[in-house]
Amino acid sequence: MAFLAENKYGKSRVRLMKVRRLDDRHDVKEWNVQVLLEGDFERCFTVGDNSKILPTDTIKNTVYSLGRSSTATCMEQFAKELTAHFLEHNPQLTAASVEIEEKKWAHVVVNDKLQPTTFQQSGPESFTTQVTQKRGEGLQIQSGIRGLVILKTARSSFAGYIKDPLTTLKESHDRLFGTEAMAVWTYDRADLPFAALRADILRTLLCSFAKHESLSVQHTLYAMGQAVLEAAGAVKDVQLTMPNRHCLLVDLTPFGQDNPNMIFVPTDEPHGYIEAKVVRQA
Amino acid sequence: MAFLAENKYGKSRVRLMKVRRLDDRHDVKEWNVQVLLEGDFERCFTVGDNSKILPTDTIKNTVYSLGRSSTATCMEQFAKELTAHFLEHNPQLTAASVEIEEKKWAHVVVNDKLQPTTFQQSGPESFTTQVTQKRGEGLQIQSGIRGLVILKTARSSFAGYIKDPLTTLKESHDRLFGTEAMAVWTYDRADLPFAALRADILRTLLCSFAKHESLSVQHTLYAMGQAVLEAAGAVKDVQLTMPNRHCLLVDLTPFGQDNPNMIFVPTDEPHGYIEAKVVRQA
Amino acid sequence: MAFLAENKYGKSRVRLMKVRRLDDRHDVKEWNVQVLLEGDFERCFTVGDNSKILPTDTIKNTVYSLGRSSTATCMEQFAKELTAHFLEHNPQLTAASVEIEEKKWAHVVVNDKLQPTTFQQSGPESFTTQVTQKRGEGLQIQSGIRGLVILKTARSSFAGYIKDPLTTLKESHDRLFGTEAMAVWTYDRADLPFAALRADILRTLLCSFAKHESLSVQHTLYAMGQAVLEAAGAVKDVQLTMPNRHCLLVDLTPFGQDNPNMIFVPTDEPHGYIEAKVVRQA
Amino acid sequence: MAFLAENKYGKSRVRLMKVRRLDDRHDVKEWNVQVLLEGDFERCFTVGDNSKILPTDTIKNTVYSLGRSSTATCMEQFAKELTAHFLEHNPQLTAASVEIEEKKWAHVVVNDKLQPTTFQQSGPESFTTQVTQKRGEGLQIQSGIRGLVILKTARSSFAGYIKDPLTTLKESHDRLFGTEAMAVWTYDRADLPFAALRADILRTLLCSFAKHESLSVQHTLYAMGQAVLEAAGAVKDVQLTMPNRHCLLVDLTPFGQDNPNMIFVPTDEPHGYIEAKVVRQA
Repeated sequence: MAFLAENKYGKSRVRLMKVRRLDDRHDVKEWNVQVLLEGDFERCFTVGDNSKILPTDTIKNTVYSLGRSSTATCMEQFAKELTAHFLEHNPQLTAASVEIEEKKWAHVVVNDKLQPTTFQQSGPESFTTQVTQKRGEGLQIQSGIRGLVILKTARSSFAGYIKDPLTTLKESHDRLFGTEAMAVWTYDRADLPFAALRADILRTLLCSFAKHESLSVQHTLYAMGQAVLEAAGAVKDVQLTMPNRHCLLVDLTPFGQDNPNMIFVPTDEPHGYIEAKVVRQA
Repeated sequence: MAFLAENKYGKSRVRLMKVRRLDDRHDVKEWNVQVLLEGDFERCFTVGDNSKILPTDTIKNTVYSLGRSSTATCMEQFAKELTAHFLEHNPQLTAASVEIEEKKWAHVVVNDKLQPTTFQQSGPESFTTQVTQKRGEGLQIQSGIRGLVILKTARSSFAGYIKDPLTTLKESHDRLFGTEAMAVWTYDRADLPFAALRADILRTLLCSFAKHESLSVQHTLYAMGQAVLEAAGAVKDVQLTMPNRHCLLVDLTPFGQDNPNMIFVPTDEPHGYIEAKVVRQA
Repeated sequence: MAFLAENKYGKSRVRLMKVRRLDDRHDVKEWNVQVLLEGDFERCFTVGDNSKILPTDTIKNTVYSLGRSSTATCMEQFAKELTAHFLEHNPQLTAASVEIEEKKWAHVVVNDKLQPTTFQQSGPESFTTQVTQKRGEGLQIQSGIRGLVILKTARSSFAGYIKDPLTTLKESHDRLFGTEAMAVWTYDRADLPFAALRADILRTLLCSFAKHESLSVQHTLYAMGQAVLEAAGAVKDVQLTMPNRHCLLVDLTPFGQDNPNMIFVPTDEPHGYIEAKVVRQA
Repeated sequence: MAFLAENKYGKSRVRLMKVRRLDDRHDVKEWNVQVLLEGDFERCFTVGDNSKILPTDTIKNTVYSLGRSSTATCMEQFAKELTAHFLEHNPQLTAASVEIEEKKWAHVVVNDKLQPTTFQQSGPESFTTQVTQKRGEGLQIQSGIRGLVILKTARSSFAGYIKDPLTTLKESHDRLFGTEAMAVWTYDRADLPFAALRADILRTLLCSFAKHESLSVQHTLYAMGQAVLEAAGAVKDVQLTMPNRHCLLVDLTPFGQDNPNMIFVPTDEPHGYIEAKVVRQA
């Protein structure tokens, strides 16, 4: 009467802090790893036959053991090693996917002097990667940035939209434009200087957001996606999600005051939601 | 060089509290609504032409205005009215999707007496629905439950799995099995007694979770999915996500104490992650 | 030049799940424990002398070890055992304080039949206790409820308040009154049927909230506090914190619709904040 | 039978974004304001007499109206203006307290060029202030930093502590020391260059954390407090809260691997908790 359709399993929130002890300083990486596996697991679901199940506890152990032996310094490389390991040692698998989120740690700098073994976490944005390997096919490597909270106080308007009987929004030619952006881009090959590319892409996103004469969130989102494709030849496509974190102009007229685009209420809800993928023309 | 691929936009976290004032009592519904629209928006992205854009602020207004005029008492019905409204009034749209999460409010009962105008919120689980309408096609109606935190202290084992050099997990024939389950099921038609069906399905999920002789999370998940399909003929498929919220047995031997499956540490991370879809056989 | 003033230390978020295996059913308690110690620790701070420091790791171990040996079934009793243990074994301490939050788990009931080894978590409210023992003095035992989300849709008005040039609020004689209440009460002795008292007090809070003809949040808060003192003779005082979770009436007049106290926007911010302590007259 | 003891009320989470439009750039401040008032409110609680109640909605309006007219560029100054306003216009008040949390926004810099109207939020730490004014007494001004996540990978040991039958912790002479620190300091007068002082104090905290040869969290906390008092003559006392965010060394011996202080599991719970106040000697 019933059958098993798509399914996957694995381990989430495997947290790994790795300290490299160099001669003149330490480096730290903090990664939050998720591993998801697909394969021939039907009998596990239907009759409780676990003979092909690699326990999620072992998946966790694998993250730490490979964390020790790996020489990877960027998370894309480490994710590739993990997917390769799981596919190599587990013939029952048809695919393995590893997603890593990196919290940003930087050396503390005091009076222009870097403190070699002391770190401060920064954010709120974090870095992400997802490496997916289907057996017998190539790797798909996506990297991204999550929680990039940015704001333009000029060069942003929104006008010329549909007016209907439920419209109350006033057109604006000088509004605040704030968003908590998420970007995910796809690389066209698996062997790239991922850390340098990520830095380029982040710079490009910020630069195009800053300079754009925005006519809408959509308009700026597309310009940012285009800019990434122009700046990074190894990127095939970029998905951008830009919820519109509204800053509402406060009406001060009841108090006899004007409000020359000066006093706003930032609100988290409701919020506009805009997402799109910009793809390199073949 | 670049082109626009899939894209959507809309309004998230539109919160609506609706009070119905009946003769002998009040009823309240608290809904958190998200509306996402797809259509012919390319020129908005590429050149900032907003002439086909229904502002997200108007989307929000629409939720409140229809909330007033609607007589829907279940959120599936209200979501259908919203998708129909957006498609009818906006020829530029190819699809509209409405997702609603309902926070559970119940009348306060004191000494077996229902208080007709006083309510208490319960949870942590909430109810969800997602109605998607593509122009010219039928409706897809999915409903679900999110955040259902459940625990079995008997009838749960995990053994017979793969052992490899990275295995440290001990087999168990009497373990705690806790999960924060999410279920999403698809109805085979659009005109159903959704509230009664939801209550049936929730009861079925709890009952099968309670009675199952579990050999693994996967095994129980599948049994729960099967039970839903048996209990609810209008359900085509059910997707279950059951992260394994581990309760780890504490090792008390350093203190000269035994631990007869009695003292556990509940942990949120890392956690196992298991998801699968169970589909009705045609 | 500097000296050490008040200080304390301990362990937070020690999570304990305890399963009691009775003949006909299991019982579970999930407690989140915090232990804070005060005493003669000056040399630890000033010169790094740890000779009087009980490590926070040992504090954690103590919670699990006493969790095993204790026969306490309510958290007030367990907290008393913990404070007594720390003071007895650590002469350097002047005070020990234990705070416990209990997540509510109830047996699943299907078709009126209790499932003896299956549980569902409920909330959002949780139960709390704080037991403080200063050496040579009596115990202070406080218990409480946190996150009690309640709503009145009738019998709530707010009028007659100060009007000044910055007033825009309209008086209301029929408003929604929602709050996420927190209550903490102090017992007048240390040996009481805490679980039964807690149930009484919760019932009393809900009942007085339901029945009160509210002229303000303050007015209802005081009535609830009074009711607790009347219902529970062992309670010396009760502190209530009732942030006003506003439900704002939506203005539908731009759409040609009325809104007869029917459609509201629940908001989390900003919110009114009201707290007060009601004390039994000597 | 009952009487009203301490009580206060006000408005929380009043969010204000203020944009200053200078000739060559914009500046933004995002403040989350809480106002709490104390005074003669007994009849409001006991009989519902609201005649002395300034509604929390008016408190919110006051924040925005003064936000418009104020020329304050630092939040300490703005908080002082707010407390003064409430006391001056409301004779029924005995005290007013304003707490503000500032989210950090900085101009985006691309290729060493500051973008004058584009901002990025940074964190996770935020800045706080609390100004309390009791009628007829001086101001108390406290400022602080919340959520400062820092880590030392060297110069941290913990040894020489009490060993008892429940001890399992190994002494360490080279451990990771991570914390999410909170600092609150009290100024000795009300008219100070608050922004510059805050920058000095933050630099001092980071510097002393980096350079300290730590024998315990307590030891380092005290050194950081001392350093603040030495660096900032206007500070009377500093309260530091430093929960110990443990990074646990992973045991890789089951996999035949060593772990030379390299692979750690960061954990959020349980966590050590240490707080103390360091006070300037009179």
